Amino acid sequence: MPENGNSERAAVSVIGLGQMGTRIAQALLAAGHAVAVWNRSGGKAEALAAQGAVRAESVEAALSASPLAVVVLPDYATVREVLGPVAEHLRGRVLVNLTSGTPEEAAQAAEWAARHGAGYLDGAAMSGTRLVGRPEALFVFSGARDAFAEHRAVLASLGGAVHLGADPALAPVYDTALFGLAWGALAGFYHSVALAGAAGVGPAAFAAVATEHMPFVTSLMAEHARQLEDGRFPDDDGTVDVHLAAVGHLVQTSRAQGVGTDVPDLFAALLGRAAAAGRGADGIASVIGAIAEGGRDA
Amino acid sequence: MPENGNSERAAVSVIGLGQMGTRIAQALLAAGHAVAVWNRSGGKAEALAAQGAVRAESVEAALSASPLAVVVLPDYATVREVLGPVAEHLRGRVLVNLTSGTPEEAAQAAEWAARHGAGYLDGAAMSGTRLVGRPEALFVFSGARDAFAEHRAVLASLGGAVHLGADPALAPVYDTALFGLAWGALAGFYHSVALAGAAGVGPAAFAAVATEHMPFVTSLMAEHARQLEDGRFPDDDGTVDVHLAAVGHLVQTSRAQGVGTDVPDLFAALLGRAAAAGRGADGIASVIGAIAEGGRDA
Repeated sequence: MPENGNSERAAVSVIGLGQMGTRIAQALLAAGHAVAVWNRSGGKAEALAAQGAVRAESVEAALSASPLAVVVLPDYATVREVLGPVAEHLRGRVLVNLTSGTPEEAAQAAEWAARHGAGYLDGAAMSGTRLVGRPEALFVFSGARDAFAEHRAVLASLGGAVHLGADPALAPVYDTALFGLAWGALAGFYHSVALAGAAGVGPAAFAAVATEHMPFVTSLMAEHARQLEDGRFPDDDGTVDVHLAAVGHLVQTSRAQGVGTDVPDLFAALLGRAAAAGRGADGIASVIGAIAEGGRDA
Repeated sequence: MPENGNSERAAVSVIGLGQMGTRIAQALLAAGHAVAVWNRSGGKAEALAAQGAVRAESVEAALSASPLAVVVLPDYATVREVLGPVAEHLRGRVLVNLTSGTPEEAAQAAEWAARHGAGYLDGAAMSGTRLVGRPEALFVFSGARDAFAEHRAVLASLGGAVHLGADPALAPVYDTALFGLAWGALAGFYHSVALAGAAGVGPAAFAAVATEHMPFVTSLMAEHARQLEDGRFPDDDGTVDVHLAAVGHLVQTSRAQGVGTDVPDLFAALLGRAAAAGRGADGIASVIGAIAEGGRDA
């Protein structure tokens, strides 16, 4: 019987071999794990079989081949379609679902897995496909702690593997929030590259200094999170008023150089709202009130 | 005579002892340098004298006390007011001007210093006052390479000391651009903290994972700068269309959670403009066209 585990020949099964699923299977193979793979269409599984994976003939066979199934499909509807008919093969196994979705979908999938006797971890790959298998790649997981602990060694072959907590909805929450964080940094970077370019500084020259500056910017995040926890906003990193004036200079310089001002206009709007709310003499982390309240005012 | 250097008793003079000037003098003292200090009002110089600095009785005396003067004043008008009357004491010395200003002001100050026989470096402190003296603090300098090389050891006591190039206007260009970069990252962070908070995740918990994610985001900057140099935008980190859809999800999630959407609205606007310009299937670094052109359209 598949559920007794006696037929298991692999440490992990990868179901769904798109760009991410394929990179995950390769990283697991590179880390020395026995890997079973399945994909709806055959070509990708065959290519991985040539790299050392065991090609499962069916989803059931893939589930039965190992105690751990990593699922990377386009959406949760596809997950239901693929796993629904073979749910009885999940019993006693752990399902790690790296499919992108909402917190509600993650919660429902965890319930469904529990009804079929499976451990469930929702997860998200935060670092694209290029770095999978390297320590810089960040994978976040949420759901049963024991399931994570049991398979931590395998999951850590994918990159930095962080367990966020027992609530399976946490992975999609972090997924969305970390995506927004990355876009803020990239929007700031792209604007600054355009501005530096207008002054004759090329992208690579600017990036060389910008990447040296980012550890400091990252340290501000940790510091400002502490301030937000305390609800106190000291002015060590400058006040809202001082930054508002500097952002005004950034807007003017951008305009004078013929560079679009959307990006600094946003900073000016956030700081302006904070100043209008009486935060002018507070530290800049107090700006978060202007964001959280932005939704309430709308 | 002050200009022959025989009366020099310090390695560096710090002129202007506001919050930043004071921290700089302290960091130089901590690194073991003999430091002369001067400030318009006396109290701050006395406090530093108690910490080991030599208090100069006048600006002339401060300039004459060492081969290197670090000037940190509120603006360039104040620099002219303070140094103008004593310009003859600059001959043969190096002036490092950390006062914030525009590229034009830096170029003018460099010309003025050259007319008075002084080497000139414009500079900017990128990391606030808290970290001054630690390697994570970034100081950028531009102007004569030999002046930087001669005083590199002293300037490196302030933190990471980067020489950007011979054009003195480069420091204010980078100052403005790095400030915009930092604000992009912080705006993204503050929005994500608000979003995570709405889902029950506290600032410190989110920041712990966010700071682990930032080295990856920083690596994207270096990679995307290479793409911009090449003018080719591969889709390894996702296409404009894929990110536009994901940003749409971020906007919807923010709205559903009662969080302001200004921040993701900006990302959607930039990506939307890039898609409209035919970049939908290109990598996201192509968005920079939507920023650089934003200024031209306006």
